[in-house]
Amino acid sequence: MFRLKITLAYTGTQFSGWQVQPGQRTVQGCLEAGLSRICSVPVRVCAAGRTDAGVHALGQVVHCDLPENRIRVPWQRALNSVLPEDMAVTGVQQVDRNFHAMFSARRKTYSYTLWQRTDYVLPQRRPFVWKVGELNLEKMRQAGAVLTGEHDFGAFQNVGTPVMSSVRQLFAVWFTPGPGESELECHFQANGFLKQMVRNLMGALVAVGQGRLSTEGLEALLQDRDRTRAPATAPAQGLCLSRVYYADPARFVETNSQYSGKEASV
Amino acid sequence: MFRLKITLAYTGTQFSGWQVQPGQRTVQGCLEAGLSRICSVPVRVCAAGRTDAGVHALGQVVHCDLPENRIRVPWQRALNSVLPEDMAVTGVQQVDRNFHAMFSARRKTYSYTLWQRTDYVLPQRRPFVWKVGELNLEKMRQAGAVLTGEHDFGAFQNVGTPVMSSVRQLFAVWFTPGPGESELECHFQANGFLKQMVRNLMGALVAVGQGRLSTEGLEALLQDRDRTRAPATAPAQGLCLSRVYYADPARFVETNSQYSGKEASV
Repeated sequence: MFRLKITLAYTGTQFSGWQVQPGQRTVQGCLEAGLSRICSVPVRVCAAGRTDAGVHALGQVVHCDLPENRIRVPWQRALNSVLPEDMAVTGVQQVDRNFHAMFSARRKTYSYTLWQRTDYVLPQRRPFVWKVGELNLEKMRQAGAVLTGEHDFGAFQNVGTPVMSSVRQLFAVWFTPGPGESELECHFQANGFLKQMVRNLMGALVAVGQGRLSTEGLEALLQDRDRTRAPATAPAQGLCLSRVYYADPARFVETNSQYSGKEASV
Repeated sequence: MFRLKITLAYTGTQFSGWQVQPGQRTVQGCLEAGLSRICSVPVRVCAAGRTDAGVHALGQVVHCDLPENRIRVPWQRALNSVLPEDMAVTGVQQVDRNFHAMFSARRKTYSYTLWQRTDYVLPQRRPFVWKVGELNLEKMRQAGAVLTGEHDFGAFQNVGTPVMSSVRQLFAVWFTPGPGESELECHFQANGFLKQMVRNLMGALVAVGQGRLSTEGLEALLQDRDRTRAPATAPAQGLCLSRVYYADPARFVETNSQYSGKEASV
C-alpha cells in the first residue's frame, strides 16, 4: 500500500457537490470511480474540504491509499484520461502515510468572484461569478480588517454538521482584480472554515460594499453570533477552493496577492 | 421602423453555430426569438460574422429593423431578460438606416487561445482553449509577420460558400498572455476572413511553433494556395470573435495589444 496526494481542479456547475451521495453525480464519486477503475479494486479518497454543490476548485487536495502493484502507474496522465472533462488532476505526489488531506492542512484559501455591473454578465464568466453591481472597495477592505483574526464565527455558520467550536482564525481577507475588467476577487485565508462560512462572510462584505451594512454593524454581528440577523448567504457559483497549505505556517507570510514561499506546490 | 445595432457576447459550446438552421439551437435563432417576442412580430437580424459551431464571441455585432412602437423599450435590459444564459447583450445603439453590420464593417479581430501544457487542461478553461503544449513564440511571431499584409489566402480557405476573391488584407497578427498562466492568445485583425481562415492560419502557426513547419514552408504554402498541403484546421472551441470595427480605419493604428481609438464602442 502507498499513499498519494492528489491536487484537483474542477468546475462545480454539473456536480452535486464534493461528497458521495446515492444517485448523485459528485466530484468524490467521479474521482473514486476513476481510481477504482485503474486499480481494479474499490478506492476511497479523503478531501481537504468538502465543497458544496456549484462550488469550484483550483487546488482541492485529497489523499488515498492504493495497492502496491499500482505504484508505477503514471498517475496524473492515467487519471486525466479517465476523469470527466469538468475535472482535472493538476498534480500528484507520493506522500508519507502520516499525511492526511484534511487533518494535516494548516490553512486554506477560498476565493470568491464578484461581477460589478448590472447591465449584463458575460456568458463566459457567468458560472463563476455573482452579479452584485458597483461596490465600495474601501469599505469592504475596512470590513475585511474587522473580520481578520481569531473570532467565534457563529454568525456566519449555517446549520449542518455539528462542530466542537465555531472559533476560527481568519488570517487574511484581501482583494484582487478578477480576470475580466468588471470582476473583483475576494480571498479568505483561514485555519479552517465553518459550514458556508465563506459564502456568509461574502454576503456580509457585499452588504457593506453596497452600503446596506456598516462596519460597526458587521462588528456587532460578529460579537452577537446571531446568524438570523446576518445578510443572506452568497450563491455557490462565485466560490472557488483556491489552495490548501500543508507546510510551515511561518512561510505563509503574504505580500498583497503574492505568496513568499512555494508552499502551494508542497 | 428604426434600426438597432446590438453588440453580443456568447459561448459557442451549446450552439450549432450562428446561422439559423431548422431543428438546431443557433445564436441567430435565439436572438431572433427574443426580439420577436418583445416586438410581437417576426424579426430578422444580420450579423457581422457568421461564427461556426463551438466558436465564441465577445463582440459580435448585428443590426435589425424594429417596429416604431417599440422604440422606447429599454433594449439591453429587455433582451438580457429573455435571452438564454449563454448569450448576453453588451451594448445597444440606435443607428442610421445605412448602417449594415456586415457591409459597413471595416475590420474584425478574432482571437484564438492556446493552452501550452500537456499534463492537464483546467476544466474552467477547457471550453475556450486548444491544448497544444509548448510553443516557440519567437518563430510564431516571425510566421505572423509573413502572413501580415494583402495576400491571396486560398491555402487557408475551406470549401464552402463561394466567394469572388480569396484576397484579404491581414492587418496584424499579435500575441498576448491569456488569462491563465499556461495560455497564449493569438489575435488576427483583417478586413475580412474566408471560411475557417483563422482556424486554418492558427493550425499553421501552431505547426510553426511546434517546429513542424518552417517560416519558409509557410511562405511557400501562402504562395502555392494549395489547401491540401497546409496543416490541419485548429478546433473551433479556441476561437472567439473579439471585435468588429466600423469607424475610420486610420484610427485603428495599434500599439501592441492596445488600440489608440475608441472605435470598439462605435
